[in-house]
Amino acid sequence: MFEFVIEATSGPARAGTLTLPHGTVETPVFMPVGTQGTVRALSPNDLRAGGATLVLANTYHLHVRPGEQTIERLGRLHRFMAWDRPLLTDSGGFQVFSLAGFRRVSEEGVEFQSHVDGSRRMLTPERATEIQWTLGADIAMAFDHVVQGEADAATARDAMERTLRWLERCARRHGELKPAYDAMSPSHIVSGEGVQRSILASYNQTLWPILQGGTHLELRSEGLRRILEIGSWTGLAIGGMSVGEPKSVMYEMLERLEPRLPPLPRYLMGVGFPEDLVAAVERGIDLFDCVAPTRNGRNGSAFTPDGPVNIRNAEYRDDPRPLDATCDCETCTTFSRGYLRHLFVADELLGLRLLSLHNVRYLIRLATDVRAAIRRNAFGPWAAEWRRRYHPGSA
Amino acid sequence: MFEFVIEATSGPARAGTLTLPHGTVETPVFMPVGTQGTVRALSPNDLRAGGATLVLANTYHLHVRPGEQTIERLGRLHRFMAWDRPLLTDSGGFQVFSLAGFRRVSEEGVEFQSHVDGSRRMLTPERATEIQWTLGADIAMAFDHVVQGEADAATARDAMERTLRWLERCARRHGELKPAYDAMSPSHIVSGEGVQRSILASYNQTLWPILQGGTHLELRSEGLRRILEIGSWTGLAIGGMSVGEPKSVMYEMLERLEPRLPPLPRYLMGVGFPEDLVAAVERGIDLFDCVAPTRNGRNGSAFTPDGPVNIRNAEYRDDPRPLDATCDCETCTTFSRGYLRHLFVADELLGLRLLSLHNVRYLIRLATDVRAAIRRNAFGPWAAEWRRRYHPGSA
Repeated sequence: MFEFVIEATSGPARAGTLTLPHGTVETPVFMPVGTQGTVRALSPNDLRAGGATLVLANTYHLHVRPGEQTIERLGRLHRFMAWDRPLLTDSGGFQVFSLAGFRRVSEEGVEFQSHVDGSRRMLTPERATEIQWTLGADIAMAFDHVVQGEADAATARDAMERTLRWLERCARRHGELKPAYDAMSPSHIVSGEGVQRSILASYNQTLWPILQGGTHLELRSEGLRRILEIGSWTGLAIGGMSVGEPKSVMYEMLERLEPRLPPLPRYLMGVGFPEDLVAAVERGIDLFDCVAPTRNGRNGSAFTPDGPVNIRNAEYRDDPRPLDATCDCETCTTFSRGYLRHLFVADELLGLRLLSLHNVRYLIRLATDVRAAIRRNAFGPWAAEWRRRYHPGSA
Repeated sequence: MFEFVIEATSGPARAGTLTLPHGTVETPVFMPVGTQGTVRALSPNDLRAGGATLVLANTYHLHVRPGEQTIERLGRLHRFMAWDRPLLTDSGGFQVFSLAGFRRVSEEGVEFQSHVDGSRRMLTPERATEIQWTLGADIAMAFDHVVQGEADAATARDAMERTLRWLERCARRHGELKPAYDAMSPSHIVSGEGVQRSILASYNQTLWPILQGGTHLELRSEGLRRILEIGSWTGLAIGGMSVGEPKSVMYEMLERLEPRLPPLPRYLMGVGFPEDLVAAVERGIDLFDCVAPTRNGRNGSAFTPDGPVNIRNAEYRDDPRPLDATCDCETCTTFSRGYLRHLFVADELLGLRLLSLHNVRYLIRLATDVRAAIRRNAFGPWAAEWRRRYHPGSA
């Protein structure tokens, strides 16, 4: 049910196929982010048309609202959000450390205040694992302690050590849950009366560890070694990157880590601007997620092969051309830049959706193009050509 | 190019087919409102999937922003908004009298202040006709003077007389424009470079008069007679209804007017709540438009055969049922009430779209059901049964 096959390499870059309970995912892959159980402004049909195969949802957000019990009663996360392809849930660690108003970290877990209603709540490794099991995504993430990008070595080591101890607790709880659910009869599955699209609930889930360690290579190396000692994993995430440190630091870290990484799928959390995706694939990364396509899209900023376009600019007022002439999405095959600009200037909801749709499709196509270049062992020249066009000034 | 065939009647209710340059429209018909050249939160594909055949856009809004010249450069309104089926443009009269900050009415026209940028502008019968000709909808409306629903007889007569004089000027200008455009070569048509969906610009347009007269039957009767003396029309609109007067007044007016109406398509402007559509068809009306499906949808209110549902209500939190089990729209065939409630409570954009989509589909299906009942000469019993279910308390 969980399998990763590396089909081709081009330097450290790899093209693979990840098999999960709800389908297969070709890598490198970009995951759209469905924070609250919906990729903002897009429907499941939009995501399917855009070629999305794996979508991320946030445990913290769904726990706080509407709560995992409601989602379970509505048939678990796949049926809840009508997404019948693979899903991954983040553990809530990142959100607890970035969104919650108040928080208190102890060895037991994190006590925090909900950003929605101010209620005091507690997430522990066991609770984060239980909530994710209830949600039922294909891939669950271990609960981690995230620190600032520029944290000093002592702070970063403290968080990394805690994350390793929490990983053991997550793995133990995950191992306990599986047999219990296996013993349940199918009648436990909420029938979803009247909802015609049939989405089968799956009780198969794998747990991935998250490597922390800040910008300190020796911590990252030690953390990696100890994660691999703790268990046998089906994938590995690198967390705490792109959280304030300079990009060069992230790239160097990936380069130094790459030779030590096992042949598992490698997920670089929260990273996914076009230039970062290309640079990270170059350094051996397989999976990406980022809110940039939808957030930037809602702000009127669109990715194109010639770099970002701000559709609000007056120069596009009478422009009959599509946003991106190379793109096959609904936005680019249907509407002119002039019309898209009008939608943004007139504050029309359709504009938010059309640019989000294009940006998600852009990143999914980018990962597909990257994959094709790797398969013909030509990733280096492809990336050089891609950069020349994406940054016309910096060739 | 403009033809209306009445295929069946059931009392004053009629089932017809209206042939327009961009396609045929089966009546009774509900027109979704694309105020600024977009039906709020919905794409053209959503509207096609919902069965929309005729869409309304507002001349006032499009003139103020982005301006008809921009729309002409982008291939006129059909291509601009990527709607290849019939379009109708309102003349701007209603908006000038309801939206503009400042306005001064003279015999020449209306000077007003744009609600967008405060600029002083002037709409005259000629300008309103020219703008609509430039936009290129299948049906243009005459520029009218709208008064409050409860206006006294003198005020209503003054506005009606002016509307009649303006109608003559609209008709004259419309007649002048047609030969001028007929002489233009196709090379004048903006090519829409790179936009792949081909939407042919049409220079065929018909002009419909608007009957005013407030709540004064004798004024309405006189207005109708004089409109029919002014010209030979392909359709007729009844304006200034549903603008503050009690509904019983509107229904009585329609009943009294109906025997005097010619066998043209009859458009009741701005009316389209489900109960009003049924009541007006019963009184001989064929076309409707209303922002209620999209506006109410964005507020979380959904039309169903059992009456409106407010999806924010706590009772729907764990409800796995579709919004409307009888509906074939994407919303009802894909999502649970519990998920839709979550989208609204969590302020997610997808909720606005999904309820708008359902409400538009609901009204289009309602008109289709009405039409089927008329064709089997059973509209009366059908309407009684429909009301029993829609208002369970008032059977």
